[in-house]
Amino acid sequence: MPTSSPNPYLPFGENKHADWYGKDIISVKQFNRKDLEYIFGVAHEMRGMVERVGTFDLLKGKILANLFYEPSTRTSSSFTAAMERLGGSVIPINEVKYSSVTKGESLSDTIRTLECYADVIVLRHPETGSAAIAAKAAKKPIINAGDGIGEHPTQALLDTFTIMEELGRSSTGTRSGLENLTVTMLGDLKYGRTVHSLARLLSLFDNIKLNYVSPDILKMPKEVMDEVGAGNISQAEYSSLEKVLPETDVLYVTRVQKERFEDPADYEKVKGAYVIEPGMMKTAKQNMIVMHPLPRVTEISMDFDDDPRAAYFRQMEYGLYVRMALLAMVLGKA
Amino acid sequence: MPTSSPNPYLPFGENKHADWYGKDIISVKQFNRKDLEYIFGVAHEMRGMVERVGTFDLLKGKILANLFYEPSTRTSSSFTAAMERLGGSVIPINEVKYSSVTKGESLSDTIRTLECYADVIVLRHPETGSAAIAAKAAKKPIINAGDGIGEHPTQALLDTFTIMEELGRSSTGTRSGLENLTVTMLGDLKYGRTVHSLARLLSLFDNIKLNYVSPDILKMPKEVMDEVGAGNISQAEYSSLEKVLPETDVLYVTRVQKERFEDPADYEKVKGAYVIEPGMMKTAKQNMIVMHPLPRVTEISMDFDDDPRAAYFRQMEYGLYVRMALLAMVLGKA
Amino acid sequence: MPTSSPNPYLPFGENKHADWYGKDIISVKQFNRKDLEYIFGVAHEMRGMVERVGTFDLLKGKILANLFYEPSTRTSSSFTAAMERLGGSVIPINEVKYSSVTKGESLSDTIRTLECYADVIVLRHPETGSAAIAAKAAKKPIINAGDGIGEHPTQALLDTFTIMEELGRSSTGTRSGLENLTVTMLGDLKYGRTVHSLARLLSLFDNIKLNYVSPDILKMPKEVMDEVGAGNISQAEYSSLEKVLPETDVLYVTRVQKERFEDPADYEKVKGAYVIEPGMMKTAKQNMIVMHPLPRVTEISMDFDDDPRAAYFRQMEYGLYVRMALLAMVLGKA
Repeated sequence: MPTSSPNPYLPFGENKHADWYGKDIISVKQFNRKDLEYIFGVAHEMRGMVERVGTFDLLKGKILANLFYEPSTRTSSSFTAAMERLGGSVIPINEVKYSSVTKGESLSDTIRTLECYADVIVLRHPETGSAAIAAKAAKKPIINAGDGIGEHPTQALLDTFTIMEELGRSSTGTRSGLENLTVTMLGDLKYGRTVHSLARLLSLFDNIKLNYVSPDILKMPKEVMDEVGAGNISQAEYSSLEKVLPETDVLYVTRVQKERFEDPADYEKVKGAYVIEPGMMKTAKQNMIVMHPLPRVTEISMDFDDDPRAAYFRQMEYGLYVRMALLAMVLGKA
Repeated sequence: MPTSSPNPYLPFGENKHADWYGKDIISVKQFNRKDLEYIFGVAHEMRGMVERVGTFDLLKGKILANLFYEPSTRTSSSFTAAMERLGGSVIPINEVKYSSVTKGESLSDTIRTLECYADVIVLRHPETGSAAIAAKAAKKPIINAGDGIGEHPTQALLDTFTIMEELGRSSTGTRSGLENLTVTMLGDLKYGRTVHSLARLLSLFDNIKLNYVSPDILKMPKEVMDEVGAGNISQAEYSSLEKVLPETDVLYVTRVQKERFEDPADYEKVKGAYVIEPGMMKTAKQNMIVMHPLPRVTEISMDFDDDPRAAYFRQMEYGLYVRMALLAMVLGKA
Repeated sequence: MPTSSPNPYLPFGENKHADWYGKDIISVKQFNRKDLEYIFGVAHEMRGMVERVGTFDLLKGKILANLFYEPSTRTSSSFTAAMERLGGSVIPINEVKYSSVTKGESLSDTIRTLECYADVIVLRHPETGSAAIAAKAAKKPIINAGDGIGEHPTQALLDTFTIMEELGRSSTGTRSGLENLTVTMLGDLKYGRTVHSLARLLSLFDNIKLNYVSPDILKMPKEVMDEVGAGNISQAEYSSLEKVLPETDVLYVTRVQKERFEDPADYEKVKGAYVIEPGMMKTAKQNMIVMHPLPRVTEISMDFDDDPRAAYFRQMEYGLYVRMALLAMVLGKA
């Protein structure tokens, strides 16, 4: 990860708005470009603070209820660490399935109970739309940490923040935004919630070129492409990485799962084309980055992990800063 | 919830006694009226502090072992929040069933181990009497968070505290106690641990009228009525709410479970009579309150939730203050 | 437990070395005698601090990821308490089996993710060698909290520290080491990971006599005896406790499990010989101690628990101090 520098985003003092206090974070669709710049500005400050002091007391005395209806070690740990690095406390709630929910209590009642104890609630739930239901019931802010095949907005934000921190640039040479980048998305683009959300967020910036590389049966859905295409962005589809790799600034890898194919032979035919290995990366730029939402199975060889372009673990760390930023913002401290 | 005011309970400075330091909280039977007044006085102060500053460092450096042999999101979260709002730390222990207990370790050994690490232990256990066993083994204070069909004293305390905070009054016009109230208990009064404990605590106050409204097969047990009747209290049984609703100050609702009935047809006949809906509440007083231990299923319509008389979520919040008070007291800080 | 006194270990100022910062704690084999003396010196200081102030801010702002792939209430709680008593925070991770690991993520990836959030990782894993794999992947320090039938170094350290705190002595009369002690290990010496590791650590000290008392089929393995015998130590095997009990300074009891015997009749014949009861302890010294790694089932009668020689719960408490010492050391604060 490049060394942290003083905040390079242009005058944040002016952008600073108190509008985030008490707000819910439910969907990437709720953000415009100015919102993203604000979030990333705060996240960048969080990065600097963590690098300098590790932990600080911005949210001392605040309590986060970390409500996970399905397990997600990575996301849950990230939010816990985010709250603790801000000096706050966490109520970990991981066994909800065996608890009041099985007795028939509605999600709304659980939320209304927990907000009696906590100042902010992070919710992971297997059902699409549950975060919106929770937000409707709650007076305290709700942060959606994934609701089924619905949204996982903090993942999309950390993906975009990773690109900005690693490759952020603008036409005037300052690092105030994302411009003139080629982002190649690889693998399962049909079912991948993360690539849909990332494409939506990238469409808010200027002169981004999006390459979609996938097997025929796993192409980026037309409705996402239509939505993304409304922005100042170009999109193109490919079935092979080879041609677009040399121009790629960001290669976003997702897993192609065998189960998606009716005929296993079809899977065997294509799978090799979607595995990243050191050899094939010789044609890629030296300052590009490879991203992955993790967990990774075989789609990126562990032999590539020590390449400086392998950004997927740094990506996890950027997630910490984005979540710190969101917690501080909805609690009125940033 | 009414706005918090300076402590209205009469001179607490005089009542203040250090006797609580190191004590166990096992059963409602251990409290006399003076004890309750003391606990509620401290809980009221906790409420004021939380409203003013959210969290404070009264128990900084103290550690709570939150030992749950069966899941209970609500109770577990409430104790965790209580400890954290007092500046203390929590060791969450939720998977005991898969752990040393399955290897045959006795509850006493687990408790003696945990008190090496923690300053106070909150215990939830499926077996009646387990809290007393734990208290016998431990040198550190034990707080019973429910032991099977035995006791759940903090629930009973928070129920009584809710009534005092919302409707507390005395014959002299000050808010120093519970007097001259009509409390109607509705639903399953036979198996409901909470209504038995609440009735016992209310019998310590003066001029309380208790109405028991239940199906015939789910009446308040005679032994509880005998015990309660020893106090300055009147009790009466009904099979319908209609008659007693207009005079009711506190309506305490519990769920009537289908499984309690041998003949499902009997259940179908009575169930409607034990469901609270906005329409039927027109005959009730404007300043009465409806309580429920939660989780609620269908016995209170969600349409009633926005009525100011719906006190069941405020009840959860009062639970936080009562548990803060008990933790501070047994650790010698209140 | 004897009252804490000022650090009796000889000039610790001189031994103090910064070499521990960032180190992993994987195996007892990594320690020499000087290491042990340093660890126990710090642990003794931790004991004094806990007795005086309970909790202090040595690791304020530091975060521990407590990663348990299999449940172990005792060990997990002990590390959590150790971190909290040092003013640090904990990310509890107990449900890994249902999470990313089941999706196929490698242990290395999980570790590399968690070190983005935490400053130190405690790992409990069912597979031998997993702690070494984790340490190889991680930049942050890893502490092995048990990897299958492999190692559980903090258990061995706390066992040795218990003996030193309770019976430490040296030929010059100071309490700077373990010398001239008779340690009798009882029960299942074949499969007991703890007795193997303890024997290894004791072999680093001078003039220790080790008695092994076990059923024939559960004798101390020859390879452990060979390794231990390389030190300045004497070893002898017995099938009955009676003869060696009077000379014993430390009786380390482990459970003889019925399942180890092919013929249940053989188990019935021997089991009585490996149960500690008050009556048989009459021939033992007054200042000896009885230890057990816990959980205990029937191999030590609960009737013996109140005997001052019963050291097994104190042993748990010494474990807290050893873990506090290790956390402080690898984080560069001791």
